[in-house]
Amino acid sequence: GLTGVLFMVFIPPLLYFSFIPTMVNVMNEIQHFNHVTPVDNCYCFLCRSFTRLPHLAGTEQNLKYAEQIMKEWQDFGLDSVEMVPYDVLLSYPNKSRPNYISIVDANGNEVFNTSLAEPVPEGYEDVSDIVPPYSAFSARGQPKGDLVYVNYGRTEDFFQLQRQMEIDVTGKIVIVRYGKIFRGNKVKNAMLAGAKGIIMFSDPADYCADGVQPYPDGWNLPGGGAQRGNVLNLNGAGDPLTPGYPAKEYTYRYSFEDGVGLPSIPVHPIGYHDAIHLLKNMGGKTPPNNWKGALNVSYRIGPGFIDDFKSHAVRMNIHTINQVTRIYNVIGKIRGALEPDRYVILGGHRDAWVFGGIDPMSGAAVVHETVRSAGRLISKGWRPRRTIIFASWDAEEFGLQGSTEWAEDNAKLLQDRAVAYINADSAIEGMYTLRVDCSPSLHTLVYNITKQIASPEEGEEGMSLYEKTEFLMMISKLGSGSDFEAYFIRLGIAAGRARYTKNKKTERYSSYPVYHSVYETFEIVEKFYDPSFRRLQAVAQVRGGLIFSLADSLLLPLDANQYADSLRKYAQSIAHVGQMHPEEMQMYQVSFDSLFSAVENFTIAARGFHERLETPLQVRLVNDQLMYLERGFIDPLGLPGRPFYRHVIFAPSSHNKYAGESFPGIYDALFDIENSVEPQRAWREVKRQISIAAFTVHSAAMTLTPPA
Amino acid sequence: GLTGVLFMVFIPPLLYFSFIPTMVNVMNEIQHFNHVTPVDNCYCFLCRSFTRLPHLAGTEQNLKYAEQIMKEWQDFGLDSVEMVPYDVLLSYPNKSRPNYISIVDANGNEVFNTSLAEPVPEGYEDVSDIVPPYSAFSARGQPKGDLVYVNYGRTEDFFQLQRQMEIDVTGKIVIVRYGKIFRGNKVKNAMLAGAKGIIMFSDPADYCADGVQPYPDGWNLPGGGAQRGNVLNLNGAGDPLTPGYPAKEYTYRYSFEDGVGLPSIPVHPIGYHDAIHLLKNMGGKTPPNNWKGALNVSYRIGPGFIDDFKSHAVRMNIHTINQVTRIYNVIGKIRGALEPDRYVILGGHRDAWVFGGIDPMSGAAVVHETVRSAGRLISKGWRPRRTIIFASWDAEEFGLQGSTEWAEDNAKLLQDRAVAYINADSAIEGMYTLRVDCSPSLHTLVYNITKQIASPEEGEEGMSLYEKTEFLMMISKLGSGSDFEAYFIRLGIAAGRARYTKNKKTERYSSYPVYHSVYETFEIVEKFYDPSFRRLQAVAQVRGGLIFSLADSLLLPLDANQYADSLRKYAQSIAHVGQMHPEEMQMYQVSFDSLFSAVENFTIAARGFHERLETPLQVRLVNDQLMYLERGFIDPLGLPGRPFYRHVIFAPSSHNKYAGESFPGIYDALFDIENSVEPQRAWREVKRQISIAAFTVHSAAMTLTPPA
Repeated sequence: GLTGVLFMVFIPPLLYFSFIPTMVNVMNEIQHFNHVTPVDNCYCFLCRSFTRLPHLAGTEQNLKYAEQIMKEWQDFGLDSVEMVPYDVLLSYPNKSRPNYISIVDANGNEVFNTSLAEPVPEGYEDVSDIVPPYSAFSARGQPKGDLVYVNYGRTEDFFQLQRQMEIDVTGKIVIVRYGKIFRGNKVKNAMLAGAKGIIMFSDPADYCADGVQPYPDGWNLPGGGAQRGNVLNLNGAGDPLTPGYPAKEYTYRYSFEDGVGLPSIPVHPIGYHDAIHLLKNMGGKTPPNNWKGALNVSYRIGPGFIDDFKSHAVRMNIHTINQVTRIYNVIGKIRGALEPDRYVILGGHRDAWVFGGIDPMSGAAVVHETVRSAGRLISKGWRPRRTIIFASWDAEEFGLQGSTEWAEDNAKLLQDRAVAYINADSAIEGMYTLRVDCSPSLHTLVYNITKQIASPEEGEEGMSLYEKTEFLMMISKLGSGSDFEAYFIRLGIAAGRARYTKNKKTERYSSYPVYHSVYETFEIVEKFYDPSFRRLQAVAQVRGGLIFSLADSLLLPLDANQYADSLRKYAQSIAHVGQMHPEEMQMYQVSFDSLFSAVENFTIAARGFHERLETPLQVRLVNDQLMYLERGFIDPLGLPGRPFYRHVIFAPSSHNKYAGESFPGIYDALFDIENSVEPQRAWREVKRQISIAAFTVHSAAMTLTPPA
Repeated sequence: GLTGVLFMVFIPPLLYFSFIPTMVNVMNEIQHFNHVTPVDNCYCFLCRSFTRLPHLAGTEQNLKYAEQIMKEWQDFGLDSVEMVPYDVLLSYPNKSRPNYISIVDANGNEVFNTSLAEPVPEGYEDVSDIVPPYSAFSARGQPKGDLVYVNYGRTEDFFQLQRQMEIDVTGKIVIVRYGKIFRGNKVKNAMLAGAKGIIMFSDPADYCADGVQPYPDGWNLPGGGAQRGNVLNLNGAGDPLTPGYPAKEYTYRYSFEDGVGLPSIPVHPIGYHDAIHLLKNMGGKTPPNNWKGALNVSYRIGPGFIDDFKSHAVRMNIHTINQVTRIYNVIGKIRGALEPDRYVILGGHRDAWVFGGIDPMSGAAVVHETVRSAGRLISKGWRPRRTIIFASWDAEEFGLQGSTEWAEDNAKLLQDRAVAYINADSAIEGMYTLRVDCSPSLHTLVYNITKQIASPEEGEEGMSLYEKTEFLMMISKLGSGSDFEAYFIRLGIAAGRARYTKNKKTERYSSYPVYHSVYETFEIVEKFYDPSFRRLQAVAQVRGGLIFSLADSLLLPLDANQYADSLRKYAQSIAHVGQMHPEEMQMYQVSFDSLFSAVENFTIAARGFHERLETPLQVRLVNDQLMYLERGFIDPLGLPGRPFYRHVIFAPSSHNKYAGESFPGIYDALFDIENSVEPQRAWREVKRQISIAAFTVHSAAMTLTPPA
C-alpha cells in the first residue's frame, strides 16, 4: 500500500549508504540499551522529585537540584562528575517593585492594572518563589504613551504597518501577540521601528487548541497565564558580558551598557485576560483580517484610544534587575575504551521558569535515565569505544548561557575531539509524532534508529516510529532556541534534537499552550501529554540510541551523501530567492553557478568517500574525516554582524531565532533587497556571500577526499 | 672547558625531556638524510639555472621556473606535484611612465631627478625585464612640497618629531631611512601623521659594513642600489582583495578602494647617491645625534630647503599600477605510510625582485635538494610515517600572497592535520652563525638536531652547530616577513625558520646590504657569502632534519615544557611593561595574577603530559595532543583590528612586522598608554586583554590533560 511505497522512497539507495555492516552493531547497542533502560518509570521518578519546586537559574533550589543530579550520576557509576560554575548576567523582577502595565487617565490615575502574577495551580498553593511572568533582561523604565498593535511583531508585520498602512510607531508603545517567531526578534523589530516599549500577549488563537479546556481541566493556557522568557538578541554570544570567552571569575566583563543583545526598551508579557483591557480601548484603523486574533474585542492598529478614552494612555512599569549571578552545569563522563579523545555529548538544561514540568524536565529525565542505563551497562563490564559526556545545563532560559559558556570554555577540545552533540530539551510538546531536527549528516542514522523503535501510540502496535511517522516525521534543519546552538552553529559539531510533537497541519496553536507558564507541571504531562509515559520512552530511545551508536560504532554513523543532498536542495532554494530578481541578477552579474559547481564537487567527493569505505580502510582516518566534515562548514569570520554564528550552511534566521535558515549569508543579503537604498552595493554583497558559500562547500568537500 | 659547561647548561633537565628514545630514531633519520643529500653542490646546481633571469611574481619567467620545478620534483619521485594558481593583486611600475623624485625650482623646472634604475652588475648587461627599484602598491600621484626627515620612520621617531620637536608633517613629504622596521610600518606611520608622500633611502650607516667594498668588489650596497619592496599593511590578509578566502576565479573581489592594507600616499625608494641630493639642501633644525646617518651631508629635520633653495620643492612622480595577476604555487607531496592525514610542510618562495641570488633562491635550493633527497630515499623503499608537503610559493614579495592564499584554500585540512610548518626563505644573510626562530614547542628538537650537525666554519672542525653557536645561536620568537605567517599566526601550526646570519653584536647594518637590489646575484654568494657552500649545507641539514624528524618520529618531537618556560618568560616581560604604571594599575584594578596563574596551570599540565609519556601510551592520542597544542593558542576572534592575526601568544609587532611580539594583545593595549586620551577606557582594554590571555593559556593547558 501507500506505506510500502513511502517506505521505499525513504530508504536511501544502497550506493549512498555504506554503513550497513556497522549499523547492525549499532542496532544491537540500541536494543541492549533499551533492554536495560527502565524508561517507562523514569519520568515519574524524576518529575516527582525535580518538579516539586521552582528552580529558576541562579536560585538556591536550582543549585540543590544540580547537587542532587551530581550525586545520583556518581551513584549511577559515571567515571567522573563535576559541577562547573560560571558567573553570568541574569535578570529578575525587583521583588519590592512589581512589574505591571496600567491604563492611566488624563490625571495620571491608574484606571486599570495588569495582574502581578498567574493564579497558582491546585496543589502548589503553598509554594513560594514562583517568579511572576516577566521579560528577562527588559530595560527598566516607565514609558507612557499611545499603543500600536503590530500583529506578531515580525519583520513583515512592521513592514506592512510602516509601508502599507503608513503608521509610524516612533515614540509609541507597541503591543504584539506571542507566536510565530522568537520573542527577542519581536523586541528587536520594535526597537528598530523606534518604539519606546513593547507588550507581548498570548492570544487564544495562538495558545488554545480547539475543543480543549484551559488547565487544569485540559492543557490549554488559562486566561490568567502568561509566557515568561528572555528577550535578548545574543546571536550566540552566551553571557552578554563575556562574548567569546567563558564567564569565569577572572574574566573581563563588559559594562551593562556594552553587553551583547540587551534590549534598550521596557518589555512585558501578559495573558489574554489582561490583554483584552488594553486592546478593547484601542483607536485607529481596523487591521487586515490576518492580524486579528481570537479575543472578543475589535482589534485596531492604533495609535490612541477610542471614544471616551482618547485622553487615556498606557504606561509600562518595569523594574527588572540585571545581575551577575553564579550558575552551575553538571558534567559527567564515561571514558571511552578505545578512543577516549573522541567525545559524544548528550546535554539538556535543568533550569526552569517555574516547575519545568515539560520544559525542561521531560528532557532532563531522558538524560538522567540515559546516565542510569549507561551506568548499568558499565557495571556489567561494558565500556563505550568513545568518551560520552553528559551535561545538565544551567540558565538555558536566559539565553543558552550554561551550554554556551561551557562550549566557550572547552572550544579547543571540542573542536578537535567532539563527534556529535545531541540535545535533550523538552521531550514532549505534543501528542502526535516524533520530530527530529539535525545535521544532514545524521539523517541516515535517524532513519535507522527510528526503524528499530516501536511507535508509542495505542493502535499502532508493531509499527516503528519510522513507519508511523512516514512523511509526518519531519526531519528538518536546526534553528536555535536550545542548547545545541553553540555546538552546531559556532563550533560546527554535528548535532541533533528529537522530541514528540503535535500535528503541525491540523494544530495551529504556537508551541504548546502552557509554554513558560506556571501551568507546566508534572500533572499536565501525567494527565494529558503522556499518561503511559510511552511517548517519553520513545523519545528517550531515539536520543539514547543516537548517543550509544555514535559512541560505540566502529565506523562513525555519519553520512556525507545526505549532506550533499541537502546542500543541493538548499542551493536550489536560495538560488530561487535570487532569481526572483532576474533583471538585477543580470545587471549586477550575479550568478549562482559557482555555488552549484561547488555542490556538485561536494557530491562527487562524498560519493567517492563512501565508496572507498567499502574496501579495507584505516578506521581512525576516515572517522576523523567524518567527524571534521561538519567543521568544514565553519567560517571563523562568522556571518555579517553575527561573529558567533559561524556555520555557513545553517544559522538561526535573522528574523526568528527559532527557525533555521540555510545559506543564511546569501539569504540575508537578498532579504528585502528590492527596497535597498543602494542596490549596487547590496548586490555586490550578494555576490560576496555566494562566493563565500561556494568556497566553504568546496572546502568541506576537500575534507572528504583522500588525505594525500 | 667553557664549551662543556655551556653544553651542560643547554641540555634540558631529564625530567623535562621525554623524547630521548624517539630522538635516537630521529637522529638516524637525519644522518641518513645527510648521507644521501648532495647538499654541497645543490646551490651551484640550482642557482646556475634559477638565478640567470629576473623572475618577479606574475611574470612569464617565474611561471617557467615553476614549470621547471614541477617537472623536476616529479622526476625526483614525489607521489604528486601540482601547480596551484591564484589571481591576486600585484603591483608594477608603469613601463611608459617611470617613477622618480625631482627637486623643482620656483618655475616648476626639474633641477634634479633621481635615477630611474640601478647600474646593472657585470655579466647581466644584456638582461631585460629588470624591474627598477619601486615600492609595490604605492599610491599613484605627483605630490609636491617640503621635505621632513624622520629618521627611521618608526612610531617613536614620529612621536619624537611631533611631541618633542613639535614639527607637524601634515601635507608634507616625509623622507626616512630604511632599516630597523618593516617598510610598510614606516608608510603607515607617515600616513597617520598626515604626510602626503614618503621617500625611503638606504643610508650607508645601515647598508654598508665597515671595511667592506661595494659590490662587485665586496658585498656592500653600491650608492646606485636601492631596496625594492611592498609597502602594504596586510596584517596577514594575503591578497588585498580577497581577505579570508582564496583568490580563485569565482571568488568575490573587493574594489581597489576597499582592498586591505593599500597605502593612500605615493611611496618611493632611493639609494644613497640620490638621497644626498635631497638631504643636502634641507632646511630646519639639526636632528638629535642618533638620527644622523653616515652620508656626508648635514642631516636636517626640515621642512623646507636652506639658503638659495628656499623656493625649491620636492616632487614625487609615481605611476605604479596595481593589477590582478595570476600567480603559481608548486605543491608536491609524499604520502605518509602510516599517517597519511598528518602533514609536515616545508615551504619557501620562488619569486624574486630581480635575480634572487640570496632572496629567495638560497632557500629555494634547500627545498629543491630536500625533495631530491626524499626522492632518493623513496627509491630505496623508504616512506615517511606522515605525509610531507613541499611548497614553492609565489608572490611572497608582494605580501606573502602565494602561501597565504594556499593556507586560506586549505585551512580546514591544515587545521585538522598539519603537524608543523618549516619555512625556507633565504638560507644565508650573514657569515657568522645559525639563527633559528620558532615556536617554543620546537626548541628541544632544534637543540637536538643542531647537536648532530657540524659547524661549516673553517677552524671549527669537529664542533657541532649547537656547540659553535652556543649562546650565540639565538633561538627567538617568530615575527613575520616570510611565508610561515599564515601557518603560525593565523592557523596555529607549530612553525620554525632557520638561516645563517651575521653577528648581531658587532655587525650593525640592517639585514644584508644588497637586500632586494639588483646586486643579489649568484656571484655574491659564490664569491663572498659561502664560497664552499658549506654554510648553505648546514642550513639545509637543519631544515631537512626538522622536516624528516617531524615526519618520521613515532612520537612527535614537540615539547610542551619548553612552551611553559617561554610563556612564563613572556608573562613576566609583559607584566613588567604594565608595572611601569603602578599607580594606574592600582587605580584601575589591573592585575596580572590571572595570567600567572594560567601559566602555572599550563606548566603543571605540560609536566604531567610529558611524564605520562614515559609509560606505555596511545601514540596517536598523545601525538594529537602535541599537534593541537599550538592550535590551542588560536582565538578565532583575532587580535583587535587584526582579524587574521589569531595567535594570542605571538604576533608580528604592530610597529614592525618583522619583529615578533609576545602577548601582543596586552602589549598593544599598554603601548603609549600614558598618553591615552581616555585612560579609564584604555586600562579597561588592558584588563580585557589580560583576561583573554589568561583564558587562552588555560585553554591550551586543557589540551594537554588526559582526554577523559
